[in-house]
Amino acid sequence: MHARIIDGKAIAEGMRADLAKEIESLGEAGVTPGLAVVLVGEDPASQVYVRMKGKACDKIGIYSETIKLPKETSETELMEVIDRLNADPKIHGMLVQLPLPKQINERNVLLRIIPEKDVDGFHPVNVGKVATGDTTAFRPATPYGIQQMLIRSGVEISGAHAVIVGRSNIVGKPMASLLMQKADGANATVTVCHSRTKDLPGVTRQGDILIAAIGVAEFVKADMIKPGAVVIDVGTNRVDDASAEKGYRLVGDVDFDRAKEVASAITPVPGGVGPMTITMLLYNTVQAARQWSQA
Amino acid sequence: MHARIIDGKAIAEGMRADLAKEIESLGEAGVTPGLAVVLVGEDPASQVYVRMKGKACDKIGIYSETIKLPKETSETELMEVIDRLNADPKIHGMLVQLPLPKQINERNVLLRIIPEKDVDGFHPVNVGKVATGDTTAFRPATPYGIQQMLIRSGVEISGAHAVIVGRSNIVGKPMASLLMQKADGANATVTVCHSRTKDLPGVTRQGDILIAAIGVAEFVKADMIKPGAVVIDVGTNRVDDASAEKGYRLVGDVDFDRAKEVASAITPVPGGVGPMTITMLLYNTVQAARQWSQA
Repeated sequence: MHARIIDGKAIAEGMRADLAKEIESLGEAGVTPGLAVVLVGEDPASQVYVRMKGKACDKIGIYSETIKLPKETSETELMEVIDRLNADPKIHGMLVQLPLPKQINERNVLLRIIPEKDVDGFHPVNVGKVATGDTTAFRPATPYGIQQMLIRSGVEISGAHAVIVGRSNIVGKPMASLLMQKADGANATVTVCHSRTKDLPGVTRQGDILIAAIGVAEFVKADMIKPGAVVIDVGTNRVDDASAEKGYRLVGDVDFDRAKEVASAITPVPGGVGPMTITMLLYNTVQAARQWSQA
Repeated sequence: MHARIIDGKAIAEGMRADLAKEIESLGEAGVTPGLAVVLVGEDPASQVYVRMKGKACDKIGIYSETIKLPKETSETELMEVIDRLNADPKIHGMLVQLPLPKQINERNVLLRIIPEKDVDGFHPVNVGKVATGDTTAFRPATPYGIQQMLIRSGVEISGAHAVIVGRSNIVGKPMASLLMQKADGANATVTVCHSRTKDLPGVTRQGDILIAAIGVAEFVKADMIKPGAVVIDVGTNRVDDASAEKGYRLVGDVDFDRAKEVASAITPVPGGVGPMTITMLLYNTVQAARQWSQA
């Protein structure tokens, strides 16, 4: 067997083309969606992500601001920036890039962003709405993107057993919430497993859909996958590779080369979940602008 | 095999005795916890629940008010009552008994109660905090009670596979949230299954802990239970019984008589989950009063 490769880049491009049209029609109505991205400190990976988000906005016609704050920024200073953005009519969505330096309490920060501008979907109000199936919520970008990728790849989610490896607040838990709802593109039987799970391969092998979000390079081996399963790889891990130009290469949480011999469909790294994540952030920003213009 | 009966009534009584001492010491500090229960209409089951909550408060030393509104009450009128209770310093916790008459939007109502007084834990802020493992949240009474019952019965939760049948916002989903956290009394591998699940018996038979919250009398049969599993029965269903004084008897979602031959431990109906639920509401009310007195 040789798995179909789910091309996240192609799906994302199609969605962005549709989104560009919606942004154009919003523009005709006098509304330009605006996104503010706040970066505290100089974490290299965060800098890359923030730059990618800004570029994606520019390309599609979303107004964007990147606010860079020094790594010594106090919680109070960050709160003042958030308050200003909460009140700024040009800004419909904002996010604070995680992780934050140690002197800043992440929970306090996420609570300060008004839920109506919380396009990352990390405010408890949005988390709670997602958990209870309230579709007015902003859904967190990575699991929302995975759900869209499954739907748009024609994967049957209803009645399928979705096994999620990893229970982070950003991916694993909201992924479970989205897939277990009584709703289109959901209705899955959902299992969440993690570091404390006993007989992990026995559990993962039950997944008709297997979602790996652990952050450990090539953790999921072929013998952990049910033959014919759809495998979604959320990981992006650097592994040393002297033969690569940069001295490393990116690999997922799944042993791709062997997994693709067992799975019926699989997402590559890079080019799978990654492009979907930023696309859903753009979606949420446009949703925020639309809701704001209607309110 | 003959299962140990988990005596929810006895566990609840022990917890209430401890709680009574805490209420006494709060009283010495000048704080009497106060709970308001709002009932709209005359649903017979709701009337029973509301009466039970009031009685439980009286018995333990919690001040309580029951506000009964006619079934024609408009959403605006109900909101005014909530606003008044939000502002009332005697009231630390409140709940609106569900279900509500059709002219009232349940989501709007749950959003109106300030999260600090939402002792049912149904406001999205509390749902979201529970989902992300934030322990400042009010946890919804039924799943919180089940977790306490498991802990206090000495059931090993960490590493166990907990299978939850039913995905309601009141029981199934928050139960999954509580048991999957990286925390004491949690760390379970969690599966949520429901009406769309394929081969339900095959899934339920994997549960080291099996939690039935479907609302269908005796739905879970003995052959759906893993030998030696701990079975928690959330259901309370009336079935006709001419031999009973009232013409009916109460049964759970589990076929108790046969299930107890397979399980290692099981909760009865009545006397299992039920007494725990009201106990946790009392707990949450005392927690609300304590947090209020500290703020």
